[in-house]
Amino acid sequence: MSEIKRVEPRTLSGFMELLPQEQIKFNEMKRIIEETYELYGFLPQETPIIEASEVLLAKAGGETEKQIYSFTKGDTDLSLRFDLTVPLAKYVAKNYGQLTFPYRRYQIGKVFRGERPQKGRYRELYQCDIDIIGNGKLSIANDAQMPSIIYSIFKKFGFGKFIIRMNNRKILNGLFEEIGLKDQAKEALVIIDKLDKIGMDNVKEELREIGVTQENVTKLEEFFNINKFGNNDEILSALKGLGFKSETFAQGLEEIEELITYVRLFGVEEEYFRIDLTIARGLDYYTGTVYETNIIGYENIGSICSGGRYDNLAEYYTKQNLPGVGISIGLTRLFYVLNELDLIKIEKTSISKAVIVTMGVDFGEGVKVSNALRDNGIKNEIYAEDAKTKNKFSYVDSLNIPYCIVIGQDEVDKGQYTLKNMATGEQELLSIDEIVAKLK
Amino acid sequence: MSEIKRVEPRTLSGFMELLPQEQIKFNEMKRIIEETYELYGFLPQETPIIEASEVLLAKAGGETEKQIYSFTKGDTDLSLRFDLTVPLAKYVAKNYGQLTFPYRRYQIGKVFRGERPQKGRYRELYQCDIDIIGNGKLSIANDAQMPSIIYSIFKKFGFGKFIIRMNNRKILNGLFEEIGLKDQAKEALVIIDKLDKIGMDNVKEELREIGVTQENVTKLEEFFNINKFGNNDEILSALKGLGFKSETFAQGLEEIEELITYVRLFGVEEEYFRIDLTIARGLDYYTGTVYETNIIGYENIGSICSGGRYDNLAEYYTKQNLPGVGISIGLTRLFYVLNELDLIKIEKTSISKAVIVTMGVDFGEGVKVSNALRDNGIKNEIYAEDAKTKNKFSYVDSLNIPYCIVIGQDEVDKGQYTLKNMATGEQELLSIDEIVAKLK
Repeated sequence: MSEIKRVEPRTLSGFMELLPQEQIKFNEMKRIIEETYELYGFLPQETPIIEASEVLLAKAGGETEKQIYSFTKGDTDLSLRFDLTVPLAKYVAKNYGQLTFPYRRYQIGKVFRGERPQKGRYRELYQCDIDIIGNGKLSIANDAQMPSIIYSIFKKFGFGKFIIRMNNRKILNGLFEEIGLKDQAKEALVIIDKLDKIGMDNVKEELREIGVTQENVTKLEEFFNINKFGNNDEILSALKGLGFKSETFAQGLEEIEELITYVRLFGVEEEYFRIDLTIARGLDYYTGTVYETNIIGYENIGSICSGGRYDNLAEYYTKQNLPGVGISIGLTRLFYVLNELDLIKIEKTSISKAVIVTMGVDFGEGVKVSNALRDNGIKNEIYAEDAKTKNKFSYVDSLNIPYCIVIGQDEVDKGQYTLKNMATGEQELLSIDEIVAKLK
Repeated sequence: MSEIKRVEPRTLSGFMELLPQEQIKFNEMKRIIEETYELYGFLPQETPIIEASEVLLAKAGGETEKQIYSFTKGDTDLSLRFDLTVPLAKYVAKNYGQLTFPYRRYQIGKVFRGERPQKGRYRELYQCDIDIIGNGKLSIANDAQMPSIIYSIFKKFGFGKFIIRMNNRKILNGLFEEIGLKDQAKEALVIIDKLDKIGMDNVKEELREIGVTQENVTKLEEFFNINKFGNNDEILSALKGLGFKSETFAQGLEEIEELITYVRLFGVEEEYFRIDLTIARGLDYYTGTVYETNIIGYENIGSICSGGRYDNLAEYYTKQNLPGVGISIGLTRLFYVLNELDLIKIEKTSISKAVIVTMGVDFGEGVKVSNALRDNGIKNEIYAEDAKTKNKFSYVDSLNIPYCIVIGQDEVDKGQYTLKNMATGEQELLSIDEIVAKLK
């Protein structure tokens, strides 16, 4: 075997691969997301990573298509999924007759994007999505669940203050109707979406460039100044006070008012959400409520959870009318960013609660204790190697495992075991039942 | 939008995509596996699905290589992982200096194999692996944990009786040394591995074909007849009674005896494991203990959990000597097979424990109840659509959700809510606290 030609064991750039301590924290964050989605009664969904290119690219175009991993196997064109929304649309269209509506599902899985590698950008990344799909119609009460879910998850993450910013595309479209800018609405929206990044002066400049009159630019500025008002109720009053006649505007206003009412009912604290009239979400398909979420003090990293309402999810696959609302958390990037900022406040650092170490007695004595702990649901392991005492303890230490249970001849004779707290060094002689009670 | 060119929403053959009820069961099985792996203190690991072809194929060849999904992106040759063992080897070699040994990890993830599509064969499939990797050495006590873990998981699955069959490659290699067949050991092992499938007569025939003398064929038959002995202790006695002088044989015998001792200590019931001298595991790299697991009465479906001990995990990546032992459960195929045989005994059929339905009262009344349940960790949802009572109940029914909480004006006035058991039709008027206590 000495003639083996060895290959450098590398991982591709743009692909996350963590050491155990970090992986434990990553998984804990994933677990919190999944648990919260299920607390709200969402059903699990899992679609393949590989799909027929024709199916996956039914709608795609432009940037997305360029980033897709595509290849041929046999005579089939295959692609790796680049988001979880297209597979959802396919799934709902395909299984329409067998699903119960509203169909409420979550999917947590990897998606693939051949982006240019750069710090904090991943080519293989986790998305954690929930969507509620209605059959023909879907009440606005569903939109109010999203901020409640975002709030629950990020409170559990414990990274500090954040703000869920909400708007309604109908308010913006209504505004454009009102001031006779309907035909330029799409272009104008894309510009306004950048307000956060480039500031009002540049937005005005860009609006003028696409031919918006000075009068309308002024009207738009006045409208977006409402955004600076102190609280949600003040913003709602000001919007009502505008006296716009646009039907679309009125509908958007009614929806966002209902949304705010329900978000409060769902128990989201007032300081964690606000109407933000500048949120447009560049993507075409949103038609009503839109969401973005920022960490206070770290707005520069962008939105950490976004989404919105769309009128018709699966129009490229079926003639059924399927409106929906959903959000997505990009966990891989979020983990990277929080880790860089030292904002990961997950306490969990080990899997095992205790390592059992036998000293000069039969290994079987350790197995008995291990079995008893496991029967009580306590995660543990036995150190099974022949090693110096020092090395056994350093194993426990380096894995950040909180307790060590030492079993020597003394312990076997007494039927009691030494429980060592690795952080304090404190030792106690306890029965198995006492150890179980303590570690549970 | 009426001019949209629609694409048939299909899923590729060989790719599993489940309806919600089945997905819930699938996820519950995955959860049991993960939970059990963690109860034994294994660390989570996650490696990318895409690796550089050069890294992934450092060792591969033959059949495996043909099945791999490979493609080029930019100027890099990429491949999708086809198992979780090669990525483990890469990971351990790459992170050698930062890992604590023995390194005990689990990885649950999808692997990809471009097999010819046929019933029950998947191209995208879950593997659920655990391995323990030693630094230079690894005690046999580790080998005994594997049957204990398999036993725990499959007992929880509840599909009925199964048997974990164990052998040691050193016993077989020792046998070949003893009868002077060392040079043909590899070929002979491959043939013997088929004993289950083709029977002793065909095995003897094939052995003769590769040039094994009649005398040796007889010796081999005598040896494998030991396998028919009633219990593990009788087999061990018979093996000792052979009086073989081979060092390898003696070592294998010592190891399997120690293994059996520890497997008993770990609490695996005697009827669930047995020494089976015919188990060889075709793959080259096993060097000691080998495992296969069969469902009693369904032996024809093959092993549902296999694995073994190997001397050197990562020799294609590092000069470090890294012995290990591990097992793998192919969950996608196992789920398919158990489902076909109607052997999935997972009781769980829904995510939500209850659906809250408001009747003629404000939706907010339902939100309050939902929040209270969620604060107590009870998974639930609110039916938020404007629909007929009949349709609301049929939503709850068709999702197999066990309870419905009905809130009408009466309930709001009394501050008590109607809890309806969907299976029995029984209804009770209860306070929120009583409902929480009942559903928890």
